[in-house]
Amino acid sequence: MEDLYPSRVYDKPKILERKDPVLYGSPGELKEGPLNKQQLDFYETNGFLLLDNFFSPEEVKEMRKHLDLLWEENRDNDSPEVIREPESNEIRSIFDAHRKNEMFNRLSRDPRVTDIIRQILGSDIYVHQFRINFKPGFKGKEFYWHSDFETWHVEDGMPRMRAISCSILLTDNHSYNGPLMLIPGSHKKYVSCVGETPEDNYKFSLKKQELGVPDNESLTRMVKEGGITTAAAPAGSLLLFECNTMHGSNGNITPLPRSNVFFVFNSVKNKLVEPFSGLKPRPEYIANRTIQTPVLQNS
Amino acid sequence: MEDLYPSRVYDKPKILERKDPVLYGSPGELKEGPLNKQQLDFYETNGFLLLDNFFSPEEVKEMRKHLDLLWEENRDNDSPEVIREPESNEIRSIFDAHRKNEMFNRLSRDPRVTDIIRQILGSDIYVHQFRINFKPGFKGKEFYWHSDFETWHVEDGMPRMRAISCSILLTDNHSYNGPLMLIPGSHKKYVSCVGETPEDNYKFSLKKQELGVPDNESLTRMVKEGGITTAAAPAGSLLLFECNTMHGSNGNITPLPRSNVFFVFNSVKNKLVEPFSGLKPRPEYIANRTIQTPVLQNS
Repeated sequence: MEDLYPSRVYDKPKILERKDPVLYGSPGELKEGPLNKQQLDFYETNGFLLLDNFFSPEEVKEMRKHLDLLWEENRDNDSPEVIREPESNEIRSIFDAHRKNEMFNRLSRDPRVTDIIRQILGSDIYVHQFRINFKPGFKGKEFYWHSDFETWHVEDGMPRMRAISCSILLTDNHSYNGPLMLIPGSHKKYVSCVGETPEDNYKFSLKKQELGVPDNESLTRMVKEGGITTAAAPAGSLLLFECNTMHGSNGNITPLPRSNVFFVFNSVKNKLVEPFSGLKPRPEYIANRTIQTPVLQNS
Repeated sequence: MEDLYPSRVYDKPKILERKDPVLYGSPGELKEGPLNKQQLDFYETNGFLLLDNFFSPEEVKEMRKHLDLLWEENRDNDSPEVIREPESNEIRSIFDAHRKNEMFNRLSRDPRVTDIIRQILGSDIYVHQFRINFKPGFKGKEFYWHSDFETWHVEDGMPRMRAISCSILLTDNHSYNGPLMLIPGSHKKYVSCVGETPEDNYKFSLKKQELGVPDNESLTRMVKEGGITTAAAPAGSLLLFECNTMHGSNGNITPLPRSNVFFVFNSVKNKLVEPFSGLKPRPEYIANRTIQTPVLQNS
């Protein structure tokens, strides 16, 4: 398959134009889905949409209970799905949580969410990745700027930009406890990054990403054009962002932890192929290649 | 001299009550100074005051020119006044800049500032410390929570809380590029920290503070009571904060650097004595013990 979005292959970084639409739904699908025209326009222009208080306080309480449960259960779990901070060894992310926990499994099929995703992607969808991110108080570390698509394309073989990340805020995200930052409009460009992917890169990159990272000049240019939006919102809010939107977050020295559930829906018309790096694919818990989730069956 | 604010001496952290006033000026001095009653009340209650656009854009431009100059001049300077980042070796702070640069010297005597300080401290004043802080874009590191007074008391022998820090914002401080965070009201408590001060601690602590750092429980309690205020303001703004106000800042992955000039005025009635740690005092460029600055002479 032709590589429409080459990255980690050139000597110098390049900014390429996006070759895919942002809204895939037919006019009818777009009109009938849960998002209204204004919301769809905002998403198309900016590459994200923040829906405040999407889940009720009771639902958030339930999710946090299960979050704490998973944190406790995995405290001493050395399985690869549990990613730890490079320095403190604290849990940073738990992958594939929806296969381990019934409540998170239901959440990954919640029609309030999946109907929106289908509206935008104009097709059936499936869960490409599901994880919980913990950013503890006092010592939470930054997540450096990146486009998720860049990694999913190079390391997982996602051919086109037809996927959406959903982040459910499980704690209040203030401007000061390391909330997600997004560069509006950055989803319309593609930063072809520098560097060659080593074998099993994910074993390091999930702790601290050093490859597939945009260069300073490209970032500066993008921020000059689009600015930075901080996704500060109360617990229970839902942030949708396009797979190619540039995002990252600062560390967190405040006492207030920042945790979220993060899951990605991909269109069934955009199934993974061989990774464009030419290396072997990453494990299933990071990038679902077998597509078994019920979302596919119009649940 | 009796140690009214013991720290780094007990096995467990303690929160002590402040034993000093916040506003020292006589009723007449307070009434006639540059700050109005509302501003003074705010400062007394919260322990800080942010004055937006205090300096003109032309003045900021001039300061930034000299900032860049000092950065360039000190690039390869291995003198102790130039503090570098622990990992990248980039310049983090330059101490004593007002003795090296005429423009910063004038700034340290600017009556628009010193009149305010005199109003609050109710006495003549002198420059206790003067430094420039650089927090570069992309990789600026956090400054962990601390009360300046705790260190100045233990390591420099500042007897009472009668000093004020001034921070001039030389770049726009946004919520997202690592602005100063303050805990309103924290200046009325004193966190007696745990740990014994080693000889020459400052050689490490200015890169990364690990002693005189409040414990998680005290911080959590203070934030629960006072919340967190972020000093996001345009370049040219002046932030005054009480020497015992708990503050810190997160890292900065954005392309937008955060630099400021930081200087501290102490009351001449609060001159340094022997450090309460019992160790030898830190060098003059960190803590002025000889008091030669002209501010003293009612310049």
